Amino acid sequence: MATLADYLSQARASGSAEAGVRAAYERIRAWNDPALFITLRPEEEALAAARALAGKTDLPLFGVPFVVKDNIDVAGLPTTAACPDFAYTPTVSAFAVARLEAAGAIVVGKSNLDQFATGLVGVRSPYGVPRNSLRADLVPGGSSSGSATSVGAGLVPFALGTDTAGSGRVPAALNGIVGLKPTLGTVSGTGMVPACRTLDTISVFALTADDAWTVYSVMAGYDAADAYARRLPPGTPTSVPPGLRVGVPMRHSREFFGDAAAEAAFAADCAALTGLGATLIEIDLDPFFAVARLLYEGPWVAERYAAIRALIETTPEVLHPVTRGIIENARKFDAPQVFEALYKLAALKRATLPVWDTIDLMMVPTMPRPYTVAQVQADPVRLNSNLGTYTNFVNLLDLSALAVPSSLRGDGLPASVTLIGPAGGDAGLLSLGRLIQARSRLPLGATGQALPPLAVLPPTAAGIEVAVVGAHLSGMPLNHQLTDLGGKLLRAVTTTPDYRLFRLPGDGPAKPGLLRAVGGVTVAVEVWSLPSEALGAFAAQIPAPLGLGRVKLADGTAPLGFLVEAVAVEGADDISRFGGWRAYLASLT
Amino acid sequence: MATLADYLSQARASGSAEAGVRAAYERIRAWNDPALFITLRPEEEALAAARALAGKTDLPLFGVPFVVKDNIDVAGLPTTAACPDFAYTPTVSAFAVARLEAAGAIVVGKSNLDQFATGLVGVRSPYGVPRNSLRADLVPGGSSSGSATSVGAGLVPFALGTDTAGSGRVPAALNGIVGLKPTLGTVSGTGMVPACRTLDTISVFALTADDAWTVYSVMAGYDAADAYARRLPPGTPTSVPPGLRVGVPMRHSREFFGDAAAEAAFAADCAALTGLGATLIEIDLDPFFAVARLLYEGPWVAERYAAIRALIETTPEVLHPVTRGIIENARKFDAPQVFEALYKLAALKRATLPVWDTIDLMMVPTMPRPYTVAQVQADPVRLNSNLGTYTNFVNLLDLSALAVPSSLRGDGLPASVTLIGPAGGDAGLLSLGRLIQARSRLPLGATGQALPPLAVLPPTAAGIEVAVVGAHLSGMPLNHQLTDLGGKLLRAVTTTPDYRLFRLPGDGPAKPGLLRAVGGVTVAVEVWSLPSEALGAFAAQIPAPLGLGRVKLADGTAPLGFLVEAVAVEGADDISRFGGWRAYLASLT
Repeated sequence: MATLADYLSQARASGSAEAGVRAAYERIRAWNDPALFITLRPEEEALAAARALAGKTDLPLFGVPFVVKDNIDVAGLPTTAACPDFAYTPTVSAFAVARLEAAGAIVVGKSNLDQFATGLVGVRSPYGVPRNSLRADLVPGGSSSGSATSVGAGLVPFALGTDTAGSGRVPAALNGIVGLKPTLGTVSGTGMVPACRTLDTISVFALTADDAWTVYSVMAGYDAADAYARRLPPGTPTSVPPGLRVGVPMRHSREFFGDAAAEAAFAADCAALTGLGATLIEIDLDPFFAVARLLYEGPWVAERYAAIRALIETTPEVLHPVTRGIIENARKFDAPQVFEALYKLAALKRATLPVWDTIDLMMVPTMPRPYTVAQVQADPVRLNSNLGTYTNFVNLLDLSALAVPSSLRGDGLPASVTLIGPAGGDAGLLSLGRLIQARSRLPLGATGQALPPLAVLPPTAAGIEVAVVGAHLSGMPLNHQLTDLGGKLLRAVTTTPDYRLFRLPGDGPAKPGLLRAVGGVTVAVEVWSLPSEALGAFAAQIPAPLGLGRVKLADGTAPLGFLVEAVAVEGADDISRFGGWRAYLASLT
Repeated sequence: MATLADYLSQARASGSAEAGVRAAYERIRAWNDPALFITLRPEEEALAAARALAGKTDLPLFGVPFVVKDNIDVAGLPTTAACPDFAYTPTVSAFAVARLEAAGAIVVGKSNLDQFATGLVGVRSPYGVPRNSLRADLVPGGSSSGSATSVGAGLVPFALGTDTAGSGRVPAALNGIVGLKPTLGTVSGTGMVPACRTLDTISVFALTADDAWTVYSVMAGYDAADAYARRLPPGTPTSVPPGLRVGVPMRHSREFFGDAAAEAAFAADCAALTGLGATLIEIDLDPFFAVARLLYEGPWVAERYAAIRALIETTPEVLHPVTRGIIENARKFDAPQVFEALYKLAALKRATLPVWDTIDLMMVPTMPRPYTVAQVQADPVRLNSNLGTYTNFVNLLDLSALAVPSSLRGDGLPASVTLIGPAGGDAGLLSLGRLIQARSRLPLGATGQALPPLAVLPPTAAGIEVAVVGAHLSGMPLNHQLTDLGGKLLRAVTTTPDYRLFRLPGDGPAKPGLLRAVGGVTVAVEVWSLPSEALGAFAAQIPAPLGLGRVKLADGTAPLGFLVEAVAVEGADDISRFGGWRAYLASLT
């Protein structure tokens, strides 16, 4: 029993949430890591919460125990952000935590982290270094160190982290688990101690990609009290659409800092992608790395300073020395430099946009390589930066990301890849990520348990397809109505042999009408993809007697497409023998 | 001859752009204001440009002369931003200028401004104070002073300004003309000297609202080189939809700084709104004023500093003393304070959002009151701030705005109101603004010329209408597909007597098919409004043989609506005699 589904089915079968909670506490005791929790919730309190759920077995997270990073509020438990002098005890849980609790999940404790969520290593805390769940000499990863190790060790089926520059992904890689870094603003930040308020999000650690998605779906929701909240509901994971274009870094964009096992694993992970139905496209990460450099060299550290201004200006000595050194760098920047950096970010972001015309998502190593605690303690800032190579740019560019275990490295550690997509693309990442995890055949974290068989998901809609027949074809006078709205040509095909094509009477440019009819023929069409939200603007321009119905195509699909009302073809020229509008027009010249 | 349409029709009739250009130069000489232009383009050069257009009479701005604020590049003319020591001569015109020139418009000169576009008064320039076109003792308004007076005086039919905190609106009010402040990012900023790069836009001054729209439509366009450009094409102005909800400031949100004539004019302008079909809703501007205070007290001045860092750090003495004093305030802020202000802005912006659920747009005075040059010189900073009362918050909140002359004040000056809408709402502002200007019966600027009669515009779509016939009707099983997507019932009507209604064969819940056919009857339908961006999600759920075509309704409209393919009604029950699906279902019970 390790996954969320395991806990749920056990709790539902017994009708009680108590056994799951007891199991979590037993495992916590057996794991016996004094550095994992900053505050362990008293077991009796968690059990009381479990008893209060009696009978509510249909709650989506009925009786599922979870861990919360200690920079996220849980009512009644102190929030320290790994800085004892910063601690306060909130009376209200964070919005996201409250949603999970309302869905039946039960907090068992507050986990250790790199102080003020500043770091990717997990060793920058006065509460000690949580033990890596896979190999005790390795860093646990940070900043969400205790959350990741608690899931990796199988103490709870999921945990909350936060992610500004990779804190929700790097520790997932280091513990062989899944880290879902949602689109900014889809999970409320109310009740989270900010690191960089414009770049932070709560994130999810889980043993399986599907579990992470379940938690995210429950936790996401618009919070009017969070000024950075967005009305962007989680999408719906689907099967991987055929020909999904996955960008992978070209050779010069791959950096493993000398770890041959990591390099080989990533090459194998790329090769395996095609087996999952994806088309690989090599991309240049230089524009993305430029963004990452901007984060490291730029003034965003002033956000961290702003978050703890009172503390760092009055009692800086209470900070972890490495953390203090980093955050005091904020003093090097003047106010105009902040705006200058924002301009530079906007320009760099613009420079990355063309890539997204050529790919649907990208796959990168989650981190270049693992490091040991000893290595990081010897070189704390540089190695920390190395770990963020593939994570730093993501939130600055407002992208979504999902880290999943991908394959077994030569040295027996699990490798991890991160899928990255545009804002709001979370569900698409999950669709592929769950297959990557399944293909890896890796045990779940350090539990030794195998991934349960995946449910088969229905196919994707991926924008909305529109089959066009006449003036909207490529190069024709109304084609701009599609391209103006972001339309993209998907394929040129024909209908099934069930249609007749007419030249409609009337003034203005000639236009055809496609009608399904007995005694039909195949007619050439183009299938375009329109952003779903643009269909309204497109349809608003369609005059009678035309409309959009389902058009049956020879490739087996039946997208929306242009049809004509039967009453309108009375007296129209039947031009079906040309097999398409283009051929008919050619015959006129 | 004053309006853009006048110039266009004259030039097209003569087939030559020269006469219009000559007319502009004659007027410029007659107006004889040495402070209006920083650089007047040599007439011969403009005439040569006019001659180069020979034969291209179908260009949308064929031969229309215009003035460009001197913080926007015109190839070959110096850009000074009203600071001689800043001047450079660009070899390429600004993206927006180039679009206008490509459309046939001809630059005649570069106009004076408050130095570095810092000010709303028009007196902060080493090139003098442009003469207010209406009354010489008044300030011309700024920062786009010369552009506004050149239009007000009828020297050219339109001019470009820029607008960060009101520079495209306040001078419009002070010269009795129209000022269109587009949604940020819809007009490229490439080739514009930034003031606050995150808040700037090029703006349009014109004598009529329709002229301003024509210019905006030509000038707007996505510029991949502008990191702040947005893919948001100008919409289409329509007639004012019935019941348009216009928010107007409640009493305590009205501030005129003692100008009774301004107060009375605004009250009259509000009262007149209902005559234009609008519904007045009193709103509290406090959340908006809080944003304005943030701009004045906050670190955005650091953007102005960043724009001229080299100059202000090496030769600050070359700046206008008032401008220098303002911009040097940037040094009071540290880097974390910039982020703190951005957080505060995000929170204030969120606090303003609920207002937009209750109104479609708002109407405010463009400025509280006019001031004389003498008054402003005596109290340069405070009175400048007063002028921005109703303009400052607009760009910080990413809103669109349109200033139009609204009525005659008791003292003979024109009053001005500004319509404000959400980002992308520009066309909606124009739809109402043009009617306000027409109702005012004011002469155009200082020209004495009357507003020409307005063309009647077609009605608005206001979301997209969908006529539903069967299971989507209120209370029916699929009605939730509409309500889930934010659909609203608009009206229950019937079709024209041109349709047949069928009960379609097949499994599952019974469903009807509506077919336009000879020998038709009227069929009961409901018309629902869906957010345009939701139509895709709605249409994705429509199975064959149904589709969305134009359905002709007895009320004269022809919205999209459910139609069935003719081939699918073979063998289906013709239930037309029931006159609707509801009546048919009732007959079954």
